[in-house]
Amino acid sequence: MAQEKLYGGIEAGGTKYVCAIGSATGTIESQTRIETTTPESTLQRVVQFFLPYTQAGLIKSIGVGCFGPVDLDPKSPSFGFITSTPKPGWQNTDVVGTLKRALGIQVAFDTDVNAAAFGEFSLGASHGFDPSLYLTIGTGIGGGFIKDGKPMNGLLHPEMGHIRIPHDRKSDPYGGSCPFHGDCFEGLASGPAIEKRLSSRGENLSPDDPFWELEVMYIANAIENYICILSPKIIVLGGGIMQRGNLLPMVRRKVQESLNGYLKSPSLSDNIDSYIVAPDLGNRSGVIGAIALAVQLESMTRGD
Amino acid sequence: MAQEKLYGGIEAGGTKYVCAIGSATGTIESQTRIETTTPESTLQRVVQFFLPYTQAGLIKSIGVGCFGPVDLDPKSPSFGFITSTPKPGWQNTDVVGTLKRALGIQVAFDTDVNAAAFGEFSLGASHGFDPSLYLTIGTGIGGGFIKDGKPMNGLLHPEMGHIRIPHDRKSDPYGGSCPFHGDCFEGLASGPAIEKRLSSRGENLSPDDPFWELEVMYIANAIENYICILSPKIIVLGGGIMQRGNLLPMVRRKVQESLNGYLKSPSLSDNIDSYIVAPDLGNRSGVIGAIALAVQLESMTRGD
Repeated sequence: MAQEKLYGGIEAGGTKYVCAIGSATGTIESQTRIETTTPESTLQRVVQFFLPYTQAGLIKSIGVGCFGPVDLDPKSPSFGFITSTPKPGWQNTDVVGTLKRALGIQVAFDTDVNAAAFGEFSLGASHGFDPSLYLTIGTGIGGGFIKDGKPMNGLLHPEMGHIRIPHDRKSDPYGGSCPFHGDCFEGLASGPAIEKRLSSRGENLSPDDPFWELEVMYIANAIENYICILSPKIIVLGGGIMQRGNLLPMVRRKVQESLNGYLKSPSLSDNIDSYIVAPDLGNRSGVIGAIALAVQLESMTRGD
Repeated sequence: MAQEKLYGGIEAGGTKYVCAIGSATGTIESQTRIETTTPESTLQRVVQFFLPYTQAGLIKSIGVGCFGPVDLDPKSPSFGFITSTPKPGWQNTDVVGTLKRALGIQVAFDTDVNAAAFGEFSLGASHGFDPSLYLTIGTGIGGGFIKDGKPMNGLLHPEMGHIRIPHDRKSDPYGGSCPFHGDCFEGLASGPAIEKRLSSRGENLSPDDPFWELEVMYIANAIENYICILSPKIIVLGGGIMQRGNLLPMVRRKVQESLNGYLKSPSLSDNIDSYIVAPDLGNRSGVIGAIALAVQLESMTRGD
């Protein structure tokens, strides 16, 4: 029997579901990886993983950080559903209802990137910084914003990758990979955008490839917009593209250069190396964040 | 003696200070307009306006919506100061301290645009919509975001006018008017940007002038970014430039066209006319919002 109280967490991605049992302090007791196939088969296997724990009364809540778009409005008939995703077969999938019915537990539900943001805020690089921003730059680009101790949502959830940023077609004639917006931030700077533009995956480019300057400019322009709009106290910059060794310091310098001293804060002038930072939890941000969502839900239910 | 409890409100602008005594329901009992000259003289006159009310015990709190940049960090030694403003003589002006010492009252302090956002949220067009966004497009461009019933701030206050947006120099070779960023949103679309680009003030351009299409595109691109990042439930679009009769419907259409159906919400598809709206309070948003900040401060102090 575990010393610490346990919770469930699911990082529900388009290629894999990571399911875990863990504690509020980040200990993972058990974890499994399930390939994302059909909704029925995938969620069935998720239920099988958790069932022994719920039946034994060891967990009462599960947090889910889910690929989207998802419906986060508790008043909506499709609350807890994956809605208009391009992923075949997954449109209108009732994730929360399926788990609740099969497992008889409470479910905290949010987007994958909000969960990762909450993971870094709870136990990672942005711990103690409120408000804080987490960005992931990889196959997709997304951001989660933590304000007053929880991920921020509104009319819908944020779609931070789809902002419009300057695009000089002379230096970069590529029209962008976003099927909705062409050259939005994700359309210009995500992994698929790099691959389609250069016919080479980002990880195969030399760190000295001149393309990275362009990539850094797009990332810096987007970060500048997030800073001007959200004024976070820290920015955690994760995702596969950021694994490139030189990118993070280049982004910091470019953000400073582009803000040009307009915003007066030591975080932006003297301490930018601790203002724009790498994640602490690596690829575990999402699942630890999902567990943290479950912890928060139970705490709210008890009225802590 | 007034039936309703009274509060003070100050819209502290770079050209004028509007001081008012009013109630939580928006009744203004008394109001005066003070030209912004030196800090000493201006604040002296502000104090003279409020002194009879504070001495009689009729008001215990004043809200201030202030031009900036301002320091909103309660832990900072310069909290309540106007900090690095370009306005001559006003750098490092202790607005909150001066009022507190002279009047012996509580002071709620925020930016001018956050106060206006809070005014529209309290008694105007965005009442009941949380989160909500208020934008002003005029001499400057700024935005205030209301989340969980209060204006959102972070590391600093938002500077929403200074975001980077696409700028096609072929169709618009103007380099922008922002002394820090050149062609940021404010540098491309504010009143001074129009005047410098066209050698004509916006109000002198015909409503059919082809320039407005460019202006609408900049505003729509910026709004798209605010939507993707903040996901507000309503957007109130005020300021002098928006007084142009045709601009608001053009902006709505352009936002829809540019989002291209990616975000699924009836607010963005069917009901955009009630999603992007004009202010209800006209040029009183700021002073009513300042009073509402005082109301909120007293309510928090009492622990309501």
